[in-house]
Amino acid sequence: MTNATMSIKDLLNRTDRFAANAGCQITEVDDRHAIAEMRVTAEHLNGGHVCQGGALFTLADLAIAALMNHDGHLTFGISNSIMFVSSAHEGDQLRAEAVLVADHQKIPAVEVRVTDHSGRLICHVTGLGYRKATNI
Amino acid sequence: MTNATMSIKDLLNRTDRFAANAGCQITEVDDRHAIAEMRVTAEHLNGGHVCQGGALFTLADLAIAALMNHDGHLTFGISNSIMFVSSAHEGDQLRAEAVLVADHQKIPAVEVRVTDHSGRLICHVTGLGYRKATNI
Amino acid sequence: MTNATMSIKDLLNRTDRFAANAGCQITEVDDRHAIAEMRVTAEHLNGGHVCQGGALFTLADLAIAALMNHDGHLTFGISNSIMFVSSAHEGDQLRAEAVLVADHQKIPAVEVRVTDHSGRLICHVTGLGYRKATNI
Amino acid sequence: MTNATMSIKDLLNRTDRFAANAGCQITEVDDRHAIAEMRVTAEHLNGGHVCQGGALFTLADLAIAALMNHDGHLTFGISNSIMFVSSAHEGDQLRAEAVLVADHQKIPAVEVRVTDHSGRLICHVTGLGYRKATNI
Repeated sequence: MTNATMSIKDLLNRTDRFAANAGCQITEVDDRHAIAEMRVTAEHLNGGHVCQGGALFTLADLAIAALMNHDGHLTFGISNSIMFVSSAHEGDQLRAEAVLVADHQKIPAVEVRVTDHSGRLICHVTGLGYRKATNI
Repeated sequence: MTNATMSIKDLLNRTDRFAANAGCQITEVDDRHAIAEMRVTAEHLNGGHVCQGGALFTLADLAIAALMNHDGHLTFGISNSIMFVSSAHEGDQLRAEAVLVADHQKIPAVEVRVTDHSGRLICHVTGLGYRKATNI
Repeated sequence: MTNATMSIKDLLNRTDRFAANAGCQITEVDDRHAIAEMRVTAEHLNGGHVCQGGALFTLADLAIAALMNHDGHLTFGISNSIMFVSSAHEGDQLRAEAVLVADHQKIPAVEVRVTDHSGRLICHVTGLGYRKATNI
Repeated sequence: MTNATMSIKDLLNRTDRFAANAGCQITEVDDRHAIAEMRVTAEHLNGGHVCQGGALFTLADLAIAALMNHDGHLTFGISNSIMFVSSAHEGDQLRAEAVLVADHQKIPAVEVRVTDHSGRLICHVTGLGYRKATNI
């Protein structure tokens, strides 16, 4: 199986090593939204005994990468803003859902909500990408 | 040695499990700035073969946590904005330097530059914290 | 009529001088959302002959102020992030709708979409506020 | 005098109508930084009797426009993040200094500090632009 025939979901789950090491996995992706999931373990905690902001952002970033690269045009993240709303704790099953805010040809804009299993909002992320002329 | 007598540097390097697992370590901290460092390995790469944004943010967030909690008042990150300027590659030795933009009593503001060993800027992060009344 | 009996809509439309000078007016506000409107005139244009980013942000900020102060607790904006998606032109009738992302007791989070009369997204804004102990 | 021979400072001070109406003026610009100034009057205040966030952002945005368009390549602002650090009051003489964080060919990154006459930081702004192929 080559990259050309592998889905973006399988491709990124295999090749995004940092996200995989952090326990993040893409579970859904189409041209309008993408979902990535992560279970918070002791390995995700920070000095305050809650899920580290970098782990939350990694999960959101994986969902963004799946959504932005879904159509086969190589797209880089160029900026993100995050609002940390609630703490996530060990055992929480987190779900990041990325949706397109604007499907701009060169500079797509996305929004991500990271929620726990009860639907409580953990953090809210927005971001811009930059589409290169080349394909994946 | 208790937490009260351990430096914030040693405390966070020991207790921020996610940052430690990502290979990030605080190397300097005082009341004006904090530095955290990370060497990019194959384990930090994303599907585009460059350092994942979440790894870069984890490094920046560790430097922010060191700076914001240095005075012993428990401070949470509440928001961040990131501009990704250049890609970081396997083998790059990265350094995140966080400085205070505003030492507000309740809502401190910080800025972080992540650079590689040649001084090239990789990403620029700003952020706000919220100081709780309680001590660490 | 005192401030206590004036609605937040009437109060801000009267007292937010900069927003009023910019032609912005709150048209709806309740505890879940607020709407502010502005017609783009020649006075809103920038050097590129499109609506200046500051005019767009002023409109969004007025909607945020209405929403965040609706319950009578004085709330300051502490941070915002804006993604500029499409240009607005002279004659466009713009509408900013602010909704609560998180109704946190101290640090509420909001999201605003500024659209034109055809529903096209012009810009997307997020923000955090800080609620003071005092009332308006 | 045509646009080709007019400096970016004179050009934007004349053509950015919204910024001019808000009392903002570019006072310096070269390839590394740009300065815009504004005196806070009663016309800039919001419902909380301090300078409206939109007025502060308009000032910062003017400095960014001067810096990003200085070399004659038409550049649009695509995103901004703002941290509001201190309130500005009637009578304050404000100065926004924009500097390049990264002089990227397509996506330049800038940072702006808005300070009052005593040097106190009022707000901190970052932003990305997008350079079009066409010239001004």
